[in-house]
Amino acid sequence: MPHIQLNNDAPGIRSLAIYRPDTGKPLYELAQALLRAGSPDSTLTDAERELIAAYVSSLNCTNFCQNSHAAAARYLYGEQGDVVDQTLSDVGHAPLSTKLKALLLIAEHVTHDARTVSSGIVAAARAEGATDGDIHDTVLLSATFCMYNRYVDGLATLTPTDPAAYAAMGERMGTLGYVQPT
Amino acid sequence: MPHIQLNNDAPGIRSLAIYRPDTGKPLYELAQALLRAGSPDSTLTDAERELIAAYVSSLNCTNFCQNSHAAAARYLYGEQGDVVDQTLSDVGHAPLSTKLKALLLIAEHVTHDARTVSSGIVAAARAEGATDGDIHDTVLLSATFCMYNRYVDGLATLTPTDPAAYAAMGERMGTLGYVQPT
Repeated sequence: MPHIQLNNDAPGIRSLAIYRPDTGKPLYELAQALLRAGSPDSTLTDAERELIAAYVSSLNCTNFCQNSHAAAARYLYGEQGDVVDQTLSDVGHAPLSTKLKALLLIAEHVTHDARTVSSGIVAAARAEGATDGDIHDTVLLSATFCMYNRYVDGLATLTPTDPAAYAAMGERMGTLGYVQPT
Repeated sequence: MPHIQLNNDAPGIRSLAIYRPDTGKPLYELAQALLRAGSPDSTLTDAERELIAAYVSSLNCTNFCQNSHAAAARYLYGEQGDVVDQTLSDVGHAPLSTKLKALLLIAEHVTHDARTVSSGIVAAARAEGATDGDIHDTVLLSATFCMYNRYVDGLATLTPTDPAAYAAMGERMGTLGYVQPT
């Protein structure tokens, strides 16, 4: 049960955006800017952005965000959707590009202690083809999910357990993007 | 030196908001909504909001955010400004209300692992007079600073060392609030 009276039955962050539209607005705009629009020089696909979001959420053990963004990533990867669960269970052996693996290493450092993002791991990502926009978006995506994860967990929002609920969310996020709920 | 080419000499998060205005916009709107406007039923003052921001940033060891928000808190506390450094050096003995101490305990849990925000510590804050809005704003403020801290540290943005630079920032933040830089 949520720690505060939200006056709605929506799950996860949707319940919080409905409860507080003034903070919900920038939170959804930020999600849309990072998970869909991206930096002008970024090479990351929408599917890869959702995978970074699900990966950071899995490191933070936030089930709602991990399951919903994993579902969105699966929807966007289409026939290659198996890569999502392979990444979440064993990133080292997942069939990802070396560039995306180097960016996921940066995401891991941002999640645990962002001061440990070294020139070395940034240079390694660049050597695999990552642009400044890819590095920027990976750092801010990771930082942003460290926020969403804490917001959802810290207020103990509703976390569905039925996988079908997440599949429906993933399809909605994959087609409509991030539109502030009302 | 920042990990990516930001094309400006601003410090900390300002350099990032200038580099990427599309993400800078929601990031500054969120800061204004949480550090100034607040929930309709919240009892937190602007000075207390800045103190929570500085406290979370100190737990994350992000010098830029700690120093700038501590300066804003000192400016807003005015003659009671010493409470800021007392809180940052020893929160247990700082001359704060029992309500604010209970909220800072929630902030600490959100920062380290938001899944540990228990019904017990929420009830304790409520017993000291915290409203739903105070609890919401404390959780989201803490989560938000876990994001800002990681964004600033993960990209190694410029962190001034001169205390006078932070005093000037604190006065600006205390008087103008959070206006997206251009």
